[in-house]
Amino acid sequence: MDNFQFYNPTRIIFGKGTIAKLSKRVPRNARVLLLYGGGSIKQNGVYDQVMTALKNHHVREFGGIESNPDYSTLMKAVQLVRKKEIDFLLAVGGGSVIDGAKFISLAARYTEGDPWDILAKGVAKKLKKAIPLGVVLTLPATGSEMNHNSVISRRETGEKLSFGSDKVFPKFSILDPETTYSLPEKQVRNGLVDAFVHVLEQYLTYPVGAVVQDRQAEALLMGLMEMAPKAMRQPADYDARANYMWACTNALNHLIGMGVPQDWSTHSIGHELTALYGLDHAESLAVVLPWLLWHQRRQKKAKLLQMGYRVFEIKCQKYDERINRTLEALSAFFHSLGMPTTLTAYGIDPEEAAEKVAQRFEQQGWGKGENHDIQAADVAAILRLSR
Amino acid sequence: MDNFQFYNPTRIIFGKGTIAKLSKRVPRNARVLLLYGGGSIKQNGVYDQVMTALKNHHVREFGGIESNPDYSTLMKAVQLVRKKEIDFLLAVGGGSVIDGAKFISLAARYTEGDPWDILAKGVAKKLKKAIPLGVVLTLPATGSEMNHNSVISRRETGEKLSFGSDKVFPKFSILDPETTYSLPEKQVRNGLVDAFVHVLEQYLTYPVGAVVQDRQAEALLMGLMEMAPKAMRQPADYDARANYMWACTNALNHLIGMGVPQDWSTHSIGHELTALYGLDHAESLAVVLPWLLWHQRRQKKAKLLQMGYRVFEIKCQKYDERINRTLEALSAFFHSLGMPTTLTAYGIDPEEAAEKVAQRFEQQGWGKGENHDIQAADVAAILRLSR
Repeated sequence: MDNFQFYNPTRIIFGKGTIAKLSKRVPRNARVLLLYGGGSIKQNGVYDQVMTALKNHHVREFGGIESNPDYSTLMKAVQLVRKKEIDFLLAVGGGSVIDGAKFISLAARYTEGDPWDILAKGVAKKLKKAIPLGVVLTLPATGSEMNHNSVISRRETGEKLSFGSDKVFPKFSILDPETTYSLPEKQVRNGLVDAFVHVLEQYLTYPVGAVVQDRQAEALLMGLMEMAPKAMRQPADYDARANYMWACTNALNHLIGMGVPQDWSTHSIGHELTALYGLDHAESLAVVLPWLLWHQRRQKKAKLLQMGYRVFEIKCQKYDERINRTLEALSAFFHSLGMPTTLTAYGIDPEEAAEKVAQRFEQQGWGKGENHDIQAADVAAILRLSR
Repeated sequence: MDNFQFYNPTRIIFGKGTIAKLSKRVPRNARVLLLYGGGSIKQNGVYDQVMTALKNHHVREFGGIESNPDYSTLMKAVQLVRKKEIDFLLAVGGGSVIDGAKFISLAARYTEGDPWDILAKGVAKKLKKAIPLGVVLTLPATGSEMNHNSVISRRETGEKLSFGSDKVFPKFSILDPETTYSLPEKQVRNGLVDAFVHVLEQYLTYPVGAVVQDRQAEALLMGLMEMAPKAMRQPADYDARANYMWACTNALNHLIGMGVPQDWSTHSIGHELTALYGLDHAESLAVVLPWLLWHQRRQKKAKLLQMGYRVFEIKCQKYDERINRTLEALSAFFHSLGMPTTLTAYGIDPEEAAEKVAQRFEQQGWGKGENHDIQAADVAAILRLSR
């Protein structure tokens, strides 16, 4: 097991009716900026619940933060924060709104240089000042409500970059499963797949004897498979939605990734597919992951065998067969949620995608994966399999 | 699933050579009080590592905190803290030293009343002032290094009481598995059993549809069973000791108990046995738990079946038989660690113990367990089974 530091000070307030607790959690005299996305919170009642809870607070709002939040949108919020001397951010939404809020939190206090450097030049780690941030989660998927990560896009340059900083852990995150009742089935499916892939990217590498982390990751994989059908198809089943919400948070709150190698190459390749073809984030993961695992089956052999045995209960002793059946079971799980696992399912030519994405990776010029051995040519081979 | 709040701001610094990081984690100008137990840290090199790391800090020390830390010992430390204007506590040891440090942290700043009220009258929750606390863990077992709980004994009155307060979460806890290499096998056995029982007390009640928490608890049970033989018998196997250490922390860092019913009656009964007969804490748990589960098998039926199926892989469809075999497997696991599961193994008369402990519970006058249905007479029946 590798050395590690685990630190996660976010307070999770979980359950029915918990949005009302905002009134006590947001500092009484704060100048609050409420951040949200496309406006669904105004249809589903969440906006009203938030405003009722904060009726004695000073609240401004900034809506329109898009999926894969854009730098130019966020910089408008940064200007507003500076002009109105905002000193508390409240993100109400899913991963995009929360990630955007984390960027705003640092960028608004960073006046010594270009805010883009927070992403492009690793400035985030050095910054000490941040505007405190609270969250009301309405779309479980990314785990951003309980981690220190943020992914920001810049459409004018086609870039999608991330940063991490302990300064942007939310002070609190309110998770009321009832806020998810109105989500379209597709969003729930995406959230379940995103969480499942988050777990796999922290688990499916090579063994380092980390018994607890392995078992915790397997617990989340089995839990997601157990809950997924109900969570998707019974929108008003409270426990099903509570499980879905809490699983997504646990999938990326840093815990299961402590002291173990990680492989985020599925996310890296997926980001390119989203940029090129507009696939939803989770859709992009599902067309990459099974083929990446197929391609890397030699390097990931021990963990594939372990996952097959423990998670999918495929116990045959012929190792090659067990791996084949494990990969089939993984794809079958995605299909059971109505999630395609090939580029061709979206009318995308795998050959073309392979060439375009490989070209991007060649420019970046380094290997990905836990062994840094996934080169541009491997990415092309992986995408050619996705047919 | 029940509503819950999860909050755990302790920074875990885990791995080889991490004691050296103390120099940066303890505030530069703090007046530090180093708290420890019977002095084993002076034999195994931990004391030297700590003092080397803090060679530029102002450090006093207070040793001799006993197992089941005693109120009168701790009050001596409180006097020292007040007199020397200590403003940082560093607990170096296991659960007793850390629990003691948590009490000192609150008591030294509580001058408005009798410090015993922190335990006896629930004053802890109201206190806002506490001396910040850091930990170097040397004996994994209780999880105190990453929770807000503390259990304190008062030998002059035969009381053993607990408190919880967010103010006493350690600021950091350093977990270096190499510090456990010199532990006697019996201490490791005790730690493994204590952690296993902690998990069961948060898991083995009745189902509330909490998929993630159930799977996380099962992960720790399976993990502990997987790692225990190596952790006990190969003291210098780094990964085995790292797994043992991290499992104990995860068993009681509040996470798996979120939103689910709990049953701490094994601990309650065990505390009385420790007070009456001087059994080690873990020994007291192991002579109670199997018989408590046997006695409560009707109330805990669904979870016993689930644990049998998932953790012990006992899949027979005759439910009574599956529960019998599950309870046998549980005891067999304890026995495999050399841990007895009966009072008679210690030469204690179950009849006598039943009477004495039941009498104590009658005085306390309320039911324990997740349904509050374990009365004094049930406690007597449970202890009579332990033969």
